[in-house]
Amino acid sequence: MNIPEKKDIEQAYLRIEEYIHLTDCKTSTFLNNLSDSELYFKCENFQKIGAFKIRGAMNTILQIPAESAKNGVVTHSSGNHAQAVSLAAALLNIPAYIVMPENAPKVKVEAVKGYGGLVKFCKATLDARESEMEKIRADKNALFIPPYDHPQIIAGQATAAMELLRQADKSLDYLIAPVGGGGLLAGTALAVKYFGSKETKIIGAEPLGADDAHQSFLNKKLIPQKAPNTIADGLLTSLGTINFKIIMDEVEEILCVDDQDIINSMKLVWERMKMIIEPSSAVPLAAVLKNKEKFQYKRVGIIISGGNIDLNRFFNVLT
Amino acid sequence: MNIPEKKDIEQAYLRIEEYIHLTDCKTSTFLNNLSDSELYFKCENFQKIGAFKIRGAMNTILQIPAESAKNGVVTHSSGNHAQAVSLAAALLNIPAYIVMPENAPKVKVEAVKGYGGLVKFCKATLDARESEMEKIRADKNALFIPPYDHPQIIAGQATAAMELLRQADKSLDYLIAPVGGGGLLAGTALAVKYFGSKETKIIGAEPLGADDAHQSFLNKKLIPQKAPNTIADGLLTSLGTINFKIIMDEVEEILCVDDQDIINSMKLVWERMKMIIEPSSAVPLAAVLKNKEKFQYKRVGIIISGGNIDLNRFFNVLT
Repeated sequence: MNIPEKKDIEQAYLRIEEYIHLTDCKTSTFLNNLSDSELYFKCENFQKIGAFKIRGAMNTILQIPAESAKNGVVTHSSGNHAQAVSLAAALLNIPAYIVMPENAPKVKVEAVKGYGGLVKFCKATLDARESEMEKIRADKNALFIPPYDHPQIIAGQATAAMELLRQADKSLDYLIAPVGGGGLLAGTALAVKYFGSKETKIIGAEPLGADDAHQSFLNKKLIPQKAPNTIADGLLTSLGTINFKIIMDEVEEILCVDDQDIINSMKLVWERMKMIIEPSSAVPLAAVLKNKEKFQYKRVGIIISGGNIDLNRFFNVLT
Repeated sequence: MNIPEKKDIEQAYLRIEEYIHLTDCKTSTFLNNLSDSELYFKCENFQKIGAFKIRGAMNTILQIPAESAKNGVVTHSSGNHAQAVSLAAALLNIPAYIVMPENAPKVKVEAVKGYGGLVKFCKATLDARESEMEKIRADKNALFIPPYDHPQIIAGQATAAMELLRQADKSLDYLIAPVGGGGLLAGTALAVKYFGSKETKIIGAEPLGADDAHQSFLNKKLIPQKAPNTIADGLLTSLGTINFKIIMDEVEEILCVDDQDIINSMKLVWERMKMIIEPSSAVPLAAVLKNKEKFQYKRVGIIISGGNIDLNRFFNVLT
């Protein structure tokens, strides 16, 4: 199995650096007092496309040889990965074909189109998504960009934690990332292994309503997610194979929180840090607040994965 | 009339620097494209207490001689000034008496108490507020900290624009601040006069539902605001006397926008910059988008005054 090495992540960073933002590492006196710990938030909500996903997509697409790159890239996604692939392809002036279910929220379709993605609609089943994608891949000779289960994607996502380790001036006791497919968590774990301190423990944070990583971790075998049900819409998917291997090797624990915990933490960040974060990004803070004794007096890094949330329903109350 | 001089603002900055955040100057590719201009946002929503008001309050309170400071300070406000005076006093370990109307939103009362302010409730009339404050001033020998109509307050607020002029690497064509009592706009104008370029024009941005600054500017005399009606709850008050004089001398124009413009611009900033800003802070961007020709191809600085908005009603839609 192809697990990214130290040099893969170093090269990923050099490769993507000019295309991405060096996002802030922010702190909050209020949240430090509330949690009785020292929290360092890596703000990937301020990243291009509003989420860390541009890192992995950019790293992968930049490694396609020019000859095949011109045919373009293809993926199926209705989330941040779709926007990431669209923007990364646009920056390199190649077409991006994005297969989206016909019931995808309009705001997400518009976002993908806004970054230049060529949207192909299909029925809202995994089968339909995959067969439509396969058709485009054959027709256009376009390259599939996977969302998380790929070493180049993982190496790209690792660069967020790599930056955070530099930005938080002392070493961290814990580093927490949300876990869905596991690209971010696996990358975060490798960044700590290669560039961090031996004392830093890695934690995954997961919604109870989509806790396949937690179940897989406990049972030491991949258990796919069935019928996920959570507000954290970026974390519905099942853990990838490479991701699972890295997580088993490097992660200390997967902590679960329920949707009310997630909403409460999201509101705290909006209110106190004046930042929009999406529900998935509130899962690590919710895990800290739910396990206060574990994190008390500790220095804790948190990856804020993104800030893409449909604000229409919030703003409806104003009109 | 006592108008702050260059040295007053320089000294204000040296005095308050250790107590405040050096807030970000942010840009947005999307909003630059939308407005066809180059926008530089000075993010005072990330400031302590979530608004620029800590600058003026800190500058004023730090100049009180130790002998009288120990008696504490007093003000009446239900907004950001109340929080600013509370925190500034707490940082110097002196009491802050805050007179608030008995119908003040609970979230604002809690915020003031959270910063250590000693809240005294009164009836919701200006008379009641002033007489309650007068009583405390006499009882406690506490010093009144005015919200905007005072040279030390104006000198403190000026430091936000002073920082922005340094942070935006080239010179600006326009610098826009929202206007309520006029402390921020007057300070911004003086900062440009003393530390900026002669080419930089100062603009005030005001809600149509509280357009006393616009009316006063046109008529060249102070016209108090009667029955304000706007979502921009930080801009309801009438222009101060010193503030009006500075604005008449230094400001090019006051632009007005309606509440729908304000809501639209607020949503754009939340969505695209992933920042919570309060309605008052969206007024300058709304003015830019409403006057596209004026600002086309220009370099425009915008003071984001704060991010204090009651999120309860937004989050009610999630539960």
